[in-house]
Amino acid sequence: MNKALRCDADKIINESIKAVLPDEAVARALKDFKPGSGKVILVAAGKAAWQMANAALKECGRIDGGIVITKYDHVKGELPGLVCREAGHPVPDENSFSATAEALELVKPLGADDTVLFLLSGGGSALFEHPLIPGEELQDITKQLLACGADIIEMNTIRKRLSGVKGGRFAQAAAPARVFSIVLSDVLGDPLDMIASGPAYPDSSTCEQAKEIAGRYGLKLSGRARALLENETPKHLDNVQTQITGSVRELCRAAAEVCERLGYTPVLLTDELCCEAREAGSFLASVVRSHADDGRKIAYIAGGETVVHLTGKGMGGRNQELALSASVGISGIPGAAVFSLGSDGTDGPTDAAGGYVDGDTFAELKEKGIDVREVLKDNDAYNALKAVDGLIMTGPTGTNVNDVSVALVG
Amino acid sequence: MNKALRCDADKIINESIKAVLPDEAVARALKDFKPGSGKVILVAAGKAAWQMANAALKECGRIDGGIVITKYDHVKGELPGLVCREAGHPVPDENSFSATAEALELVKPLGADDTVLFLLSGGGSALFEHPLIPGEELQDITKQLLACGADIIEMNTIRKRLSGVKGGRFAQAAAPARVFSIVLSDVLGDPLDMIASGPAYPDSSTCEQAKEIAGRYGLKLSGRARALLENETPKHLDNVQTQITGSVRELCRAAAEVCERLGYTPVLLTDELCCEAREAGSFLASVVRSHADDGRKIAYIAGGETVVHLTGKGMGGRNQELALSASVGISGIPGAAVFSLGSDGTDGPTDAAGGYVDGDTFAELKEKGIDVREVLKDNDAYNALKAVDGLIMTGPTGTNVNDVSVALVG
Repeated sequence: MNKALRCDADKIINESIKAVLPDEAVARALKDFKPGSGKVILVAAGKAAWQMANAALKECGRIDGGIVITKYDHVKGELPGLVCREAGHPVPDENSFSATAEALELVKPLGADDTVLFLLSGGGSALFEHPLIPGEELQDITKQLLACGADIIEMNTIRKRLSGVKGGRFAQAAAPARVFSIVLSDVLGDPLDMIASGPAYPDSSTCEQAKEIAGRYGLKLSGRARALLENETPKHLDNVQTQITGSVRELCRAAAEVCERLGYTPVLLTDELCCEAREAGSFLASVVRSHADDGRKIAYIAGGETVVHLTGKGMGGRNQELALSASVGISGIPGAAVFSLGSDGTDGPTDAAGGYVDGDTFAELKEKGIDVREVLKDNDAYNALKAVDGLIMTGPTGTNVNDVSVALVG
Repeated sequence: MNKALRCDADKIINESIKAVLPDEAVARALKDFKPGSGKVILVAAGKAAWQMANAALKECGRIDGGIVITKYDHVKGELPGLVCREAGHPVPDENSFSATAEALELVKPLGADDTVLFLLSGGGSALFEHPLIPGEELQDITKQLLACGADIIEMNTIRKRLSGVKGGRFAQAAAPARVFSIVLSDVLGDPLDMIASGPAYPDSSTCEQAKEIAGRYGLKLSGRARALLENETPKHLDNVQTQITGSVRELCRAAAEVCERLGYTPVLLTDELCCEAREAGSFLASVVRSHADDGRKIAYIAGGETVVHLTGKGMGGRNQELALSASVGISGIPGAAVFSLGSDGTDGPTDAAGGYVDGDTFAELKEKGIDVREVLKDNDAYNALKAVDGLIMTGPTGTNVNDVSVALVG
């Protein structure tokens, strides 16, 4: 292993993760927060709801009450002035529904001088839900949509209309109060009407589309559900201001800044990577190889979320597979390294955040009798990387804004 | 389809292919050709041997004889002062051996003032061969190596030692004459000792390695073959000057130049792409998507040779799959296009050179009831692209320097 390169990698990893932790991300977003003269009510929903609320309490001068809705076991203690509720994720349960009803009751009486500080993070779609039909019917319709192969956009187009908070309806319920919405993004490309189905964002889908989808797939719907498909979601929301923070884009930018400080010219390739992990590794290795003789230090950065199609029974994750796969293509190139990690500190069902390889790794693996192609076939990147000190171990980071992959050359 | 973008694409395609045609490539390489005061003998071997020789005859003041060894049906007419031979490819035959023996006889008597103009192109490994063991034994050893899963480097390490021309031995035979070698490259990364097994390039493999491979795989070898494994190939060749031309790197550079002329900032990602075609398409689409709002015209260029793992029975090629796959990720983005083609004008078993898609393509396909995911599963990119005028048709170009993929944004 090239220790100087690994040292660079660790610096890039630690500092870029730090920049997207909920506390820093919320604090950054709150710089633009100017509440009205009335009450300030905090509503936080999602897997990072407790941390976001905790950070907001520290930053804001005053909060006049509110509610935190997060996943079971995710409340880390009492928050002064706020009630904390835990609920079902990824499948919403009665606790999701009752907590969301509480949130609606909190914001409905508010007036034009009041402000809702709405903190949204991943998982909000299940945790923050107020179905306008019985929960069982909602589940049944979801199952029908899954069975007929509807895509996520089609599913959301239907579900937004069956919900009292999705598709902008939470912000509509809070009017005339102003809603300052901070979104900790874990959806590639930051589509605000997709993250948790956009409770505080104008909905771009239409009733016409919803009815077309229902007809095309022959959905079995109750009269009530059928009537709801006619009920349009808000297309404009004058009372909402939205800040996206802690997104994979910020993660990539933070990585780019650290790279630049370390003397690399950063090249941000994409923050929407979504292809097969090992192929992304091969692609990045090809990029490195072609620039190995350029005579300058370059850092290619790709953020996103790759996929793994399991073919074996080994241990690993998409980031570890990406890195291990790249070790083949950069083998023997001095100054070349590829590393990739999940910002939540967990890559697949392992205790590693991701993997690191450099120009020495392939030879080191070979020396230990480890054949990269066989390892990839068995999806066993964890054990291979472990054998050459190539695991990235951060522990749980407290954020989740997808992955970042960095290819260093020079 | 965005006609302005398609027009840009066609310009980039036509002009970059033109830059790597054997005639232009050979003419460029010959600018540095300064023959000695003695005779100039031309030896051309490979699929493009006739065209390279024809171009060299036009460029050079004088040629004092020589030989052209190419594939059956690849001699396009008589070449003054040269004998033309056709032989077996991809499996060498008696005509390969006899023509190569003729070439050796031509260069062996040459003196220090004489010059060999050696023109090498793809296919040279089979067409230019002088086995030091009987042809049947050579075939048998090749079969043994294939059966035990030896890789191409291991195969060449053995075969170079069983040959009178490979691994630098042709140039050694021509000494003391000078050898000016022009290589039309179709191997990624231009490893000169790999292209046609490097007849005029110092060999980096050793007898020790050859014996280790023979032992490890338990190769059955005659006493003669066993003795040849002890006979070292040249590690230094003082009489050789080499010019690589018409490589995929030049293809990418030419594409970059045209892009720049058309107002795009060219970014050469790699000229050694080798991952799965559809994943490369997805990767490039992610790059385009992340830069769609940058407000400037950028052209991302990736050269190389992707692979396709067949899962269906449709018609297509790696370039068509790459482009079709990219159509998903760039769908709806104005000013975005991805195209990819084989420089020989043939992509897979089709009459198309490759495929073109832009931000409109996905919707156009959907309108025609074509589901990109299903098409890719069936490896039927040809018919899908044909339906939306997305095929790139160049006809046979007369060169073969791998593929180039371009992603336009802006």
